[in-house]
Amino acid sequence: MDQTVNVVKIGGNIINDPQALNTVLDHFARLDGPKVLIHGGGKLATDLAGKLGIPQTMVQGRRVTDQETLRIAIMVYGGWINKSIVAGLQARGLSAVGVSGADFDLIRAMKRNPVPVDYGFVGDITGVNSKALNTLIQTGTTPVFAPLSHDGKGSLLNTNADTIAYEVAKALAHAFQVRLLFTFEKEGVLLDVSDESTLVKDLTPGRYAELRAQGKITDGMIPKLENAFRAIEAGVSEVILGKAEVLPRLIERSTGTRLYRNA
Amino acid sequence: MDQTVNVVKIGGNIINDPQALNTVLDHFARLDGPKVLIHGGGKLATDLAGKLGIPQTMVQGRRVTDQETLRIAIMVYGGWINKSIVAGLQARGLSAVGVSGADFDLIRAMKRNPVPVDYGFVGDITGVNSKALNTLIQTGTTPVFAPLSHDGKGSLLNTNADTIAYEVAKALAHAFQVRLLFTFEKEGVLLDVSDESTLVKDLTPGRYAELRAQGKITDGMIPKLENAFRAIEAGVSEVILGKAEVLPRLIERSTGTRLYRNA
Repeated sequence: MDQTVNVVKIGGNIINDPQALNTVLDHFARLDGPKVLIHGGGKLATDLAGKLGIPQTMVQGRRVTDQETLRIAIMVYGGWINKSIVAGLQARGLSAVGVSGADFDLIRAMKRNPVPVDYGFVGDITGVNSKALNTLIQTGTTPVFAPLSHDGKGSLLNTNADTIAYEVAKALAHAFQVRLLFTFEKEGVLLDVSDESTLVKDLTPGRYAELRAQGKITDGMIPKLENAFRAIEAGVSEVILGKAEVLPRLIERSTGTRLYRNA
Repeated sequence: MDQTVNVVKIGGNIINDPQALNTVLDHFARLDGPKVLIHGGGKLATDLAGKLGIPQTMVQGRRVTDQETLRIAIMVYGGWINKSIVAGLQARGLSAVGVSGADFDLIRAMKRNPVPVDYGFVGDITGVNSKALNTLIQTGTTPVFAPLSHDGKGSLLNTNADTIAYEVAKALAHAFQVRLLFTFEKEGVLLDVSDESTLVKDLTPGRYAELRAQGKITDGMIPKLENAFRAIEAGVSEVILGKAEVLPRLIERSTGTRLYRNA
């Protein structure tokens, strides 16, 4: 259990910006020891759906994945973004493999119940193949996950990248020390979302509940932090939120928000 | 060297036909022992380029891969087709992984010389990572190759699926008995392309040269057979050409064209 695996989730803000992505891949490739990258989507999927005239339906801020939208997700997330990152990591000397949940049967999911809201081809994770994941890591391979799971019956499913990061970190925590880095467009959790100087450096579930009750944590941060605290509870050693562009500074604790169990 | 690896290449005719693809995946999943699948493109890439208004340039019957066309190839071949096949094989109980040449650094290539014809982002293979490929096979994994290589400098490149099949079969021949099955839309090599009863069941390089001189082998069959004979010369045990829909019959020798060295 001495070896630390860095599990890094990057989002659309990085994927949409080739220069930022290069910086992040530079940092990521230089991290010591075993590592896993999970990437989200980015605007290319929406752009492509627009160009192809495929209407995108949003319900409660979430995209509905119909058959055509699933195909776009598989093409853009599982193809273009995933393989471009893998080629970029190989160029930096890492032995990477780009995977969806179907590859090596890594992530199984169930199509979400269409009641009360039918989100279409969206998968809720039912299991991670820890054995296959551990084997990849132990043989020096860096898995790069697209936000896609599969149902074991031949269908791929759209799954939130934060959730994949959480499930992968949790599965690895049985065999390794795991540091989970949820990166996004901010320095970390901010008391005032427009002011980076209001960074919350340390956060316990108790403090999180207080801030949430005060209305200081809202919107997209809530599911992110829920996933993050669940990861801590599930045995992940460290969870850090912050900007991917400063990955080494997040790890050395000079910026970002670090989560802790309640004292 | 006792174990036989089946290396099966399937083309656009199967990929464009969901029912035929299901039949082929059924047959493929039931093949004894280790196996590798290589798939080509199919019309979806051309359809998508058309819908996106990306003009496709052909030179001497070959598509020029500009930056936008490369992106489509990565999305369609490396994403949609590749991951759909992997999910289909997992549903049939195979532990499959979908790969481009960048994954595990499996297939390195050089961008083709732009003189005399600039085909754009097309890669000529310079090496196959036999060690990584053997490890996948020895651990019971079925690699599924998209027709994409990489240059080791961060770029993916378009590479002909027949050529990938040939190079993969050749690389495996150092460690395994290899049976290479080049499947396409005909029963095998036909003396009269419109009459399946004119199937050539056995073909040596000498007979191939004769038939070619007589104008009975033309067009797309020539590069396919050149690759196939090169595979035999490179130590591949058996090379068979025929229809993927009758894969078991090709292996039991009741149809298809089998290639031999000159007596």
